[in-house]
Amino acid sequence: MHHRTFLQRWVLSHEGALKALGAAMQKAQELGVPECIAVVDDAGHLLAFVRMDGAKFLSIETALNKAVTAVSGRKPTGAVTQDAELKLAIATQGKLINLKGGLPLMQGADIVGGIGVGSGTGDQDLVVAQAGADALAGIPRP
Amino acid sequence: MHHRTFLQRWVLSHEGALKALGAAMQKAQELGVPECIAVVDDAGHLLAFVRMDGAKFLSIETALNKAVTAVSGRKPTGAVTQDAELKLAIATQGKLINLKGGLPLMQGADIVGGIGVGSGTGDQDLVVAQAGADALAGIPRP
Amino acid sequence: MHHRTFLQRWVLSHEGALKALGAAMQKAQELGVPECIAVVDDAGHLLAFVRMDGAKFLSIETALNKAVTAVSGRKPTGAVTQDAELKLAIATQGKLINLKGGLPLMQGADIVGGIGVGSGTGDQDLVVAQAGADALAGIPRP
Amino acid sequence: MHHRTFLQRWVLSHEGALKALGAAMQKAQELGVPECIAVVDDAGHLLAFVRMDGAKFLSIETALNKAVTAVSGRKPTGAVTQDAELKLAIATQGKLINLKGGLPLMQGADIVGGIGVGSGTGDQDLVVAQAGADALAGIPRP
Repeated sequence: MHHRTFLQRWVLSHEGALKALGAAMQKAQELGVPECIAVVDDAGHLLAFVRMDGAKFLSIETALNKAVTAVSGRKPTGAVTQDAELKLAIATQGKLINLKGGLPLMQGADIVGGIGVGSGTGDQDLVVAQAGADALAGIPRP
Repeated sequence: MHHRTFLQRWVLSHEGALKALGAAMQKAQELGVPECIAVVDDAGHLLAFVRMDGAKFLSIETALNKAVTAVSGRKPTGAVTQDAELKLAIATQGKLINLKGGLPLMQGADIVGGIGVGSGTGDQDLVVAQAGADALAGIPRP
Repeated sequence: MHHRTFLQRWVLSHEGALKALGAAMQKAQELGVPECIAVVDDAGHLLAFVRMDGAKFLSIETALNKAVTAVSGRKPTGAVTQDAELKLAIATQGKLINLKGGLPLMQGADIVGGIGVGSGTGDQDLVVAQAGADALAGIPRP
Repeated sequence: MHHRTFLQRWVLSHEGALKALGAAMQKAQELGVPECIAVVDDAGHLLAFVRMDGAKFLSIETALNKAVTAVSGRKPTGAVTQDAELKLAIATQGKLINLKGGLPLMQGADIVGGIGVGSGTGDQDLVVAQAGADALAGIPRP
C-alpha cells in the first residue's frame, strides 16, 4: 500500500523562528540576563540565533545543543537519568546535553523545532526558552 | 500576520525510504555492481541504508554524502562548477561531494529526501540512484 | 605452518543483514516504538540501517555505536563496569557506548556482526535488537 | 607607557547585528532568493543568524565560514589567490572559505564583525551581504 510512502507535517518557518527568538530575547531583557538563544527546525538544523551583549561565547554551542536535544528527544532538556546522561553526551559528540534550557516547539501535537537558551542559570535559561515557546503556542493553523 | 509561522510539507516515510532502497538494490543486482545505497530525509539525516556484498566500505561515507548533497542542493550531484567544488567540500567537512550518484527525491514539487549511491563508476551509481528515485515517482498523494 | 597464514570465517551477507533489520523492525512495530536500527559487519562497518517514522535523529548515532560496541566486545552492550565505561567511551571518541540495545550476531560460535537499536527505552531497544539477532539464529550453515 | 597596556575598540552590539541581519534578509526577499545569513563579532563568534525558508541546510556552515573569513582577513571573501585558497582552507579546517558572500563590518576605520551569506549564487550572496553591511554604515558614533 503506497499510502504511507509520504507523510504530511507542519514545519516552522523562519518567520516563526524569529518570532520565538524575539519573545525569548525580550524575556531575557526583562530578567536582565544576557543569553544565547538558538531556534532549530525539527531536524536540529539552525533556523535563527542571537547572542545578546554580555552572553558567554561558549554558550553559543550549549544553546544550540540544548535546542537539538529538545527536538530530538521531543521533550524539555534536563530529564535524562544520571546514569545515562554522560554516556549519551559522549556517544553524540556532545550534541545531547542534559541541562535545563531546551524546549521542543509544537504546532498542536506536531513537533516543529526546538529552542535552546544558555549563558544564565539553568532556571533563567528555562524561563527564557519558555517565553520563546509560548510565542508560538496558540497560533491557529493557517 | 501569523499565517506564515508554520508551513506544511510532505516528508518521506521509512516505508518510502525502504521502497527506494529496494528498487535501487534491484537495479544494482541487474547491473552486477555491488553498491552502497543511502536514503536520507529532507534534512540529510539517514533513513535507510544497505551495503551490498562486495561494495567498498569507504563508499559508505560517499554514498551518504551524495544523498546529503543532493537534498541540500535540491538537484543531482556532480553539477557544481570546478571552481567551487573543492572549496565547498572543505567548508562542509566533506559533506558536499560533487560526484555523480546523488539525486533528490521528490513528491510532486516538494523535495522530501535524497538518495546517494557509491562503489561503482559514477555512471553506474547514477543509474542505480535513478532506479531508487523512480520507485517513488508517480505515487499519488494519499 | 602455512595453514595459519589464512583463516576462514563466516561473514554476514547484505541479505542476512536485511533479514535481521526486518525482524527487528517488525518487533518495534508490534511494541509501537519507533526505533533506529543498525546492522554492522564484523569490522563495525554499516551493512543495513533504518530509522522508523518518529524515531529520534540523535539515535542514528547511538544505534550505530551500540552495534559497533557489541561486535567489537563480542557481547551485549551495557555490561562494562561503571568504573571503566566513561574512560572507554572517551578513548574511543564515543564509539564504545555502554547502554542496552546492542547485540553480537553469531553464526554458530563465530561472530559475524552486530545489531544496535536506539530511540526507545533501554529495555525496548534490547527486545528489538534480540528479535533481529534471533532471525539469524538457527539458520543452518550452507 | 601604560597607555598601551589596554586598547579601546568599537564592538558590534546584538542590536547592530540584528539590524544587519534584517537588512540582508529584506534584500534576499526582494531578490526572491532564500539565504542563510550569519553575523559574527570581531572574534568570529556568532552573533545573529537566520536560515530563510528554502535555503540549503549545508549553507548554514558556509555562511558562517564566510563571515569568519571576512572578519579575520579584514576584507571581502573571494580575493585569496588561487594558489593559496585550498592550502588555507585545509589548514583552517574549512573555516577559511574563498567564495563570494562574506564582508567585514566596519565602524569608521575599525572592523567590528563580519557578515556571511550562502545558498544563492556567489553574486546573489554578495549583494545580500552588502545590504547587511550598508545598514551599519553611516551610523554616527555615539
